[in-house]
Amino acid sequence: MATLGDIGVSALINILSAFAFLLAFALLRIQPINDRVYFPKWYINGGRASPRRGGNFVAKFVNLDFKTYLTFLNWMPQALKMSETELINHAGLDSAVFLRIYTLGLKIFVPITVVALVILIPVNVSSGTLFFLRKELVVSDIDKLSISNVRPESIRFFVHIGLEYLFTFWICFMLYKEYDNVATMRLHFLASECRRAEQFTVAVRNVPQISGRTIADSLDHFFKTNHPDTYLCHQAVYNANKFARLVRKRERLQNWLDYHQLKFERHPEKRPTKKIGFLGLWGENVNSIDFYKQQIKEFDKQMELERQKVLNDSKSILPVAFVSFKSRWGAAVCAQTQQSKNPTLWLTDWAPEPRDVYWRNLAIPFVSLTIRKTIISISVFALVFFYMIPIAFVQSLANLEGLERVAPFLRPVIELGFIKSFLQGFLPGLALKIFLYILPTILMIMSKIEGHMAISTLERRASAKYYYFMLVNVFLGSIVTGTAFQQLHSFLHQPPTQIPRTIGVSIPMKATFFITYIMVDGWAGIAGEILRLKPLVIFHLKNMFLVKTERDREKAMDPGSVDYPETLPSLQLYFLLGIVYAVVTPILLPFILVFFAFAYLVYRHQIINVYNPRYESGAAFWPHVHSRIIASLLISQLLLLGLLSTKKAANSTPLLVILPVLTLSFHKYCKSRFEPAFRKYPLEEAMAKDLMDRTTEPDINLKAFLADAYLHPIFRTFEEEEMVEVRVDKVRVDRHQTNAETAQTREDFSSSSPPHHVHRHSSPPHHSYQPTSPPQDVYLHGIASQYEYNLSSPPHYGYHYEAEPWTSRD
Amino acid sequence: MATLGDIGVSALINILSAFAFLLAFALLRIQPINDRVYFPKWYINGGRASPRRGGNFVAKFVNLDFKTYLTFLNWMPQALKMSETELINHAGLDSAVFLRIYTLGLKIFVPITVVALVILIPVNVSSGTLFFLRKELVVSDIDKLSISNVRPESIRFFVHIGLEYLFTFWICFMLYKEYDNVATMRLHFLASECRRAEQFTVAVRNVPQISGRTIADSLDHFFKTNHPDTYLCHQAVYNANKFARLVRKRERLQNWLDYHQLKFERHPEKRPTKKIGFLGLWGENVNSIDFYKQQIKEFDKQMELERQKVLNDSKSILPVAFVSFKSRWGAAVCAQTQQSKNPTLWLTDWAPEPRDVYWRNLAIPFVSLTIRKTIISISVFALVFFYMIPIAFVQSLANLEGLERVAPFLRPVIELGFIKSFLQGFLPGLALKIFLYILPTILMIMSKIEGHMAISTLERRASAKYYYFMLVNVFLGSIVTGTAFQQLHSFLHQPPTQIPRTIGVSIPMKATFFITYIMVDGWAGIAGEILRLKPLVIFHLKNMFLVKTERDREKAMDPGSVDYPETLPSLQLYFLLGIVYAVVTPILLPFILVFFAFAYLVYRHQIINVYNPRYESGAAFWPHVHSRIIASLLISQLLLLGLLSTKKAANSTPLLVILPVLTLSFHKYCKSRFEPAFRKYPLEEAMAKDLMDRTTEPDINLKAFLADAYLHPIFRTFEEEEMVEVRVDKVRVDRHQTNAETAQTREDFSSSSPPHHVHRHSSPPHHSYQPTSPPQDVYLHGIASQYEYNLSSPPHYGYHYEAEPWTSRD
Repeated sequence: MATLGDIGVSALINILSAFAFLLAFALLRIQPINDRVYFPKWYINGGRASPRRGGNFVAKFVNLDFKTYLTFLNWMPQALKMSETELINHAGLDSAVFLRIYTLGLKIFVPITVVALVILIPVNVSSGTLFFLRKELVVSDIDKLSISNVRPESIRFFVHIGLEYLFTFWICFMLYKEYDNVATMRLHFLASECRRAEQFTVAVRNVPQISGRTIADSLDHFFKTNHPDTYLCHQAVYNANKFARLVRKRERLQNWLDYHQLKFERHPEKRPTKKIGFLGLWGENVNSIDFYKQQIKEFDKQMELERQKVLNDSKSILPVAFVSFKSRWGAAVCAQTQQSKNPTLWLTDWAPEPRDVYWRNLAIPFVSLTIRKTIISISVFALVFFYMIPIAFVQSLANLEGLERVAPFLRPVIELGFIKSFLQGFLPGLALKIFLYILPTILMIMSKIEGHMAISTLERRASAKYYYFMLVNVFLGSIVTGTAFQQLHSFLHQPPTQIPRTIGVSIPMKATFFITYIMVDGWAGIAGEILRLKPLVIFHLKNMFLVKTERDREKAMDPGSVDYPETLPSLQLYFLLGIVYAVVTPILLPFILVFFAFAYLVYRHQIINVYNPRYESGAAFWPHVHSRIIASLLISQLLLLGLLSTKKAANSTPLLVILPVLTLSFHKYCKSRFEPAFRKYPLEEAMAKDLMDRTTEPDINLKAFLADAYLHPIFRTFEEEEMVEVRVDKVRVDRHQTNAETAQTREDFSSSSPPHHVHRHSSPPHHSYQPTSPPQDVYLHGIASQYEYNLSSPPHYGYHYEAEPWTSRD
Repeated sequence: MATLGDIGVSALINILSAFAFLLAFALLRIQPINDRVYFPKWYINGGRASPRRGGNFVAKFVNLDFKTYLTFLNWMPQALKMSETELINHAGLDSAVFLRIYTLGLKIFVPITVVALVILIPVNVSSGTLFFLRKELVVSDIDKLSISNVRPESIRFFVHIGLEYLFTFWICFMLYKEYDNVATMRLHFLASECRRAEQFTVAVRNVPQISGRTIADSLDHFFKTNHPDTYLCHQAVYNANKFARLVRKRERLQNWLDYHQLKFERHPEKRPTKKIGFLGLWGENVNSIDFYKQQIKEFDKQMELERQKVLNDSKSILPVAFVSFKSRWGAAVCAQTQQSKNPTLWLTDWAPEPRDVYWRNLAIPFVSLTIRKTIISISVFALVFFYMIPIAFVQSLANLEGLERVAPFLRPVIELGFIKSFLQGFLPGLALKIFLYILPTILMIMSKIEGHMAISTLERRASAKYYYFMLVNVFLGSIVTGTAFQQLHSFLHQPPTQIPRTIGVSIPMKATFFITYIMVDGWAGIAGEILRLKPLVIFHLKNMFLVKTERDREKAMDPGSVDYPETLPSLQLYFLLGIVYAVVTPILLPFILVFFAFAYLVYRHQIINVYNPRYESGAAFWPHVHSRIIASLLISQLLLLGLLSTKKAANSTPLLVILPVLTLSFHKYCKSRFEPAFRKYPLEEAMAKDLMDRTTEPDINLKAFLADAYLHPIFRTFEEEEMVEVRVDKVRVDRHQTNAETAQTREDFSSSSPPHHVHRHSSPPHHSYQPTSPPQDVYLHGIASQYEYNLSSPPHYGYHYEAEPWTSRD
């Protein structure tokens, strides 16, 4: 294994590469041309409209103020300037609490590192004789600092046990304090929020089909009967698969039109033409701009028909609805109680934020949910333990012989020496690399199949799956040699008490590997995160070829939110490593400390300047963070038990058996003490906010406020949609007032034709979560209580009485 | 092992003993003198006031109608006569659903028995060569009929696997139908109930102590704020340990008075006297009747003072209360929602029936509940796996040498031959026998420590613990030799896949043991249940020495309810045996069928004629019954998997691995489909009943109806208590009307002195659940909203203005 010198070299390389990334970042970010890549949050926020440094033409793209190059690390103090309250206002509670995970890491590991290094290193080193479990193991300097150096049956193991106790109590204490903090922050955040649609709304699934009655009728009847004092109105969800397909087709046509118009603008002398036959290869030559305008016009008519059909056909109403109440109390009551005698009907739950709704999963029936969950559980298990099988299969196909067999004509090329050696080195790894790259996407698709209703839930579930994968394949997989499948096989054929021993014995030996892992993934990786190389390239490409208006530029720079499904599990892996190695090889701890401190700075900077949260869940992920740190504690206790039992310190077993029991009791207590704050909404709170509302604004028109809050995004014009988003995100003003504005915008849309309409389809609205593939079935969502209104005044009603139709716009 | 002949002999013995019990029962039950032992339910019910057969003096005690001796089995058709609806009205839903477990057993096992015997016996027998796993195993005829007889690697095993599939589907189908049935029955039962206090009441625990405010004030304030439209009133719970002690002392004094008065009545010539010194051994001689009367008078004064103190001292109010609402809807909302920001405060849950409340657990704080549950879980685990350790220790003490060492003076007696051999045979088993006899009591005490609020919950928890004990120590303990502790040890040191194999291999060999077990415990034991030998003896003893009035006789004959904590787990063991052996040794099935049929008849008779349910939980135990049968299915599938893997039918493994997954999915589905009906109260239902009430009785005074529903039983006079009980049990009339009667009774109590007052303390009221030991701390429960009323008019207020005090009564 590696010596201290090897570690030093590795550290140097990683520090240098991290430094290089930081330097590149420092240079790139002060160029005005990159301002929208490194500070998009300020643009979205309205805090900045154009790069700060202007002046002459060159200065618009390149920073000429050489003084700023000298202070290239000044983003670090800047990142720390913002207070937590400001941060919550700036980026939401999710982001602020996400940063608290890093500070929690620091709070937990700084004292542990100090104590472990001061006490354990002398204890381990001074044991004198280095004892090896097996002869074939190579000595390493790191091992001399670890528990491996302690003689079997030594009394010194009680120091390790004592410290394990101490660390467990310290970690539990910090976890308790932090859970308390976060729960208070969440309740405070929820309490200080303005009036928001989801506070009054409950999502109802599995509305029963009663013959001779529409869904809207039975909804109205049921809630008027059972919540007579609080029921306000409901919004039905429509099945609009066909309409969604039309919308997508129209977008494609619009793209073509944009493309041709752009071409025409650049070369006004050459009128673009198009053959109308198959794939544009033959047929009559027509003016392509006119052709697409004509097509779009026809499409709009077709869409209007389809829209009417969807709204008129009672069969297209899904048995799902968003039911709104007159008070938060009413919604809290309805969300937390069972409604019907048949517990599979009228399932109520809190409605997610409108922008957090994952519309496609709304129509999944109850029975299928159980089956879906079972199938996905089995699939995740299979994925975690057997993912190597298909990859090995693909690898076996993707070798040179396989390639030659499939494509014999390539043989002469392949047989060339350098190409052959390149392919031989490259091909086998390719399948695995591709798999690991698409793994988060696979896990997200699995979560979607499970049928959760909110994007935030989907991300949490995907994050859990990724954590299991990392735990088995990165942590256990690195400690125990062989694939996860082989491990599973050997674990099934070992006595249960043997498993912690098998793993425990290998733990100290793998310390150097994990130190290297932390440096590569944790140090250099985080430095790569701040550089944002991929978004940088993509932004400039888009900027060069697509962007025409300010709005398009905003869409091109859209940074999205922090990638929780990937970030949270790897963060939890660092906690696991720190806790497991705290008493075994304490020399690993400083590396983890550096990671937590550096990552904290980087993510603070990114959250302040870059990311724009897609939703606000009010730190709903915290219970998972908490319970996974508890799980890490349990794992570390079990592994120490196994390790010590191989050290013949068997009389310590009873001492170490108590610890997991205590930890589990602590977890149970925390669960009952704090978790309800994240899952339920106390009536006391709801009533207090209701009363405050009633005194401050007694004459609010809640019905108007809630009217189209849960309208399917596909059903809105894009103008409306963005207005709503901005409103929900930042301003959070009274919906009642802005409703008039929305109507105004709608009017604008049909009567005027602003120039930025041309490119408004160039990038997808950041509402829809489907990363690459177009939605298979999207559900149209309307307001049943305003049914007549919708029919008579669709967004496109302008067509019918407007003097200027679509075609006359440019 | 046993041959078919041995089984036959054993069966004959058991059938004969069962027959003897039945004959004894038939003879005893038709004697008028035993009428109250065998038909107490009818007396309690009001259906019978005295034995049916009367006439001359002898006929009062002995049945002289010899014709009835010939038809001694006629209780069987009689037991079947009552329809299920009548049964529910007669004995409650709990009893009716309890009987359905037996019919479920018949429904499941009759087709399985037929199919298994017809298909499997030929398959197993015709395999020709009997194959033995190990040489040392003794051949038995039973084994020839079992799966052991099939050659390894035989294709015939697919018949067994196919049948396991068939049986699993059949059992799941029956379970689904039955769960559906029971859930419907429960909802129907709850819907058809009259107005009852618990429908409007919610138990609130952990009411916070706010300085400068009484508990009653904060309760009123909190619920008036957060449930303004539905909150009605609340009833605080008082800490009345000292008062309870006084009540118990007064009861003892009253007993002595009764004893002396009885003596005086029998021998009027001899006035009873008593020495007032230490233990009545010296001191002044006084008239003991006068002495006790004087003492009781002083006690009553003391009690009145204590009572006032409890009611006046705000410190004696516990942070627990029963909060009542104006409507069922309001109570359902409060019970199902979270009230406070701090989820450990204001914990709400449905109030149990007043007679079902276990008062002593009301004051346990929330933090201690988690700790208590952890401790009890560990204790149950220890009890199940290590119970042999203390018993072995006691056995090692309780041998002859130990006895001689402790009591050397006994040596000459012990050394006598026949006493020595008796003790040697008797002593070692004694500790185990005593332990098994008190085990249900131990488990019940453990459940009480867990802190559940209702007696029904306590019984369910005790039943669960008993099931684990039976599963490990009866089922596994009989299959795998050695104590549970040794099994645990060997399981921990075996690979997990080895465990089903170890157990699976032994399964067929233990069939004869379990057949004998079924005959002894299931056939003869059930026949013993109907004979009621112990209650018969106790009743006649009490009747001879204690009973003076009709009321005393009723108390002496009180049969209690069916002993669920013991009956349910053993019933579930029979399901387990049937399911496990269905494909392994199908010859065991007919024995189980006989058990189910016979036990069904017996318990139907007992429920109709004997038992008087202590509470009505609305079949709340069914989810446990369901999930334990599912657990049996899983166990049987795992064991078959293990058994077949030793038979080298390894290619069948994938087929059998699917089955547990399917079973678990079925269980999950059933859980979400039916369990809410047993845990929650749907708002739809509550609202429907509220509306019906409002139309039928718009002007009911609900406050008066609920006023003293949750009054602590110790705080009532015994007259009141019984009236309330009768009212709640049978009549269920409007409390509003009877309230006047109660006041009347109270008046009666103080103004008149009915003769039956003398013995009213001879047996404990059947309200209190403490089996043997006196309650350590009993909480006095008053009505805070009627606080002033209680202070001014306690039950004993008659003393102050009555012309005739206690002493002048006789």
